[in-house]
Amino acid sequence: MYYIGVDLGGSSIKAGLVTEQGNIVMKGQKQTKVKEGSEVVIRDMASLIEELLEESELDGREVGGIGVGIPGAAREDGLVYFATNIFWTNVPLGSQLKGMTNKSVHVANDATMAAVAEYTLGITKGSANSLFITLGTGVGGGVIINHQVYSGSHGIGTELGHMVVGKNPDYDCTCGNNGCWETFASGTAMKNHARRLLEQGHESILPDLAKGDPEGINIRNLFDGFRQKDEVCIQVVNRMTRYLASGIANLINIFDPEVIALGGGISASADCFLEDLKALVAQRIYVKSMNVTRIEISQLGNDAGIIGAAMYAKTMESNSPSP
Amino acid sequence: MYYIGVDLGGSSIKAGLVTEQGNIVMKGQKQTKVKEGSEVVIRDMASLIEELLEESELDGREVGGIGVGIPGAAREDGLVYFATNIFWTNVPLGSQLKGMTNKSVHVANDATMAAVAEYTLGITKGSANSLFITLGTGVGGGVIINHQVYSGSHGIGTELGHMVVGKNPDYDCTCGNNGCWETFASGTAMKNHARRLLEQGHESILPDLAKGDPEGINIRNLFDGFRQKDEVCIQVVNRMTRYLASGIANLINIFDPEVIALGGGISASADCFLEDLKALVAQRIYVKSMNVTRIEISQLGNDAGIIGAAMYAKTMESNSPSP
Repeated sequence: MYYIGVDLGGSSIKAGLVTEQGNIVMKGQKQTKVKEGSEVVIRDMASLIEELLEESELDGREVGGIGVGIPGAAREDGLVYFATNIFWTNVPLGSQLKGMTNKSVHVANDATMAAVAEYTLGITKGSANSLFITLGTGVGGGVIINHQVYSGSHGIGTELGHMVVGKNPDYDCTCGNNGCWETFASGTAMKNHARRLLEQGHESILPDLAKGDPEGINIRNLFDGFRQKDEVCIQVVNRMTRYLASGIANLINIFDPEVIALGGGISASADCFLEDLKALVAQRIYVKSMNVTRIEISQLGNDAGIIGAAMYAKTMESNSPSP
Repeated sequence: MYYIGVDLGGSSIKAGLVTEQGNIVMKGQKQTKVKEGSEVVIRDMASLIEELLEESELDGREVGGIGVGIPGAAREDGLVYFATNIFWTNVPLGSQLKGMTNKSVHVANDATMAAVAEYTLGITKGSANSLFITLGTGVGGGVIINHQVYSGSHGIGTELGHMVVGKNPDYDCTCGNNGCWETFASGTAMKNHARRLLEQGHESILPDLAKGDPEGINIRNLFDGFRQKDEVCIQVVNRMTRYLASGIANLINIFDPEVIALGGGISASADCFLEDLKALVAQRIYVKSMNVTRIEISQLGNDAGIIGAAMYAKTMESNSPSP
């Protein structure tokens, strides 16, 4: 049996045909036509899936189901409550895609899908309880409890980035609160912090790294500057690390998992912060004599979304009663 | 079959003989001789259990096991990592009590036991996912996930009170961090906040309510003052409510439970804050269109610890492989 994994992002729809063991045998992608609305995006998703199936020359009956990871929150039956950066509210993705493909469809948050991929093939494999934290534009979370995906009672849990952890002088969160974890420990947080320091007149090589355009500063510039011992970049990376540690300590105090996996753009520069992070977490956890939760960097990279979505579909299918 | 539930606190050891349905048929208590050390306390616990069994005239074989709720963190086999307010570190409570009573012993945090009691007989009964939050001297947490107790991979999770949520100007937490949730939303937090306001010269009826001794102010004084529209008490209760809401919103964003039950001394004055609390939580949760987690006040009172510990023992016994 094969499963189809779809990773719906703000710029592209990626899909892959995946074996039961989590290996991608074929994949493709299309641009996400955000401005044309959800129906066009879902139709593109269906045609991408159809193309994969045709190219694979598989009998449709060999495909067990479709998993879709979305940048938002969804109910188990595939109603997307919202996905902010593609402007979706209450979109019946599950039923529409099922109607177009005649396959069962299982929808969940993209960080949840990445957590499933890590649990199936990656760094959290075999652990009963683990967290996956994406450190990108925002901070997302996926949770495995007792070897199963946990998304809450209504599919809106594990929004780890919206845990309020302090007062943020730089900006309010898009959710309306001030002080969400993702306003301290995401790429957006780092860029806003750097901009404030530059506006305050701190000297830095950052404008040069960003080719003279302070608006164009990206995460890579910040870590490059850190490696070149630029004072502003050091401040920015160190504050991110402190808040990342504080939030991770909170989550260890709450979940006491075997392992926490870090993914997303920031995790690619773990050489700049991972050792400091582990030391800070050890200082901050409640049971200091039991510093046993491993903190690891995700190794699956860009395919995690496709693999996780396919493995999620497989799990949900095997949990369903037989027809 | 009967189970024995023990609630170990800083001032008393309470124990009860409990039916499989969670009804207490007999109970007793002894003072906790904290200063005489853990062995004396455990021996007193064993003799309290023996007295109950003798008085009940039950055949020992009708007792399925003993559950003990402790004010701290413990491993599943009953090693107490620590229990701060009774000064225990790495105490093998489980094995010692088993040696004295010849019964199997199951140890967990007291808030976890209260969560089990609520799930068995109380306000969270039948809910797949629920949280129990004790608002007393500190803030404790018990978590039910997928109809089962969740304590983490090493028995040190669900320390909800040690989630850092901000910067606290009044005092550092006993755990060494600044800004733990319990330094804003516990009785201790309320008293420290009131003391600061009085020191700053705010007029208040609090010294009168506390019979002239500002050190003697208790939670009841603060809520009485609130009901009498005392400005200091209003500030104190309102700040506690704001932070309680902020932490509960965090936990809803993380767990998305069906219900959150509030217990402990503060919850007895819910008339002063529950409506405001619900309104604030509704504003702060991430998925505002899905304000579906119920927030309820625990109804079980002082017996929750005994009942929960007994029901925990029952659950753990039925999960064990048969002899």
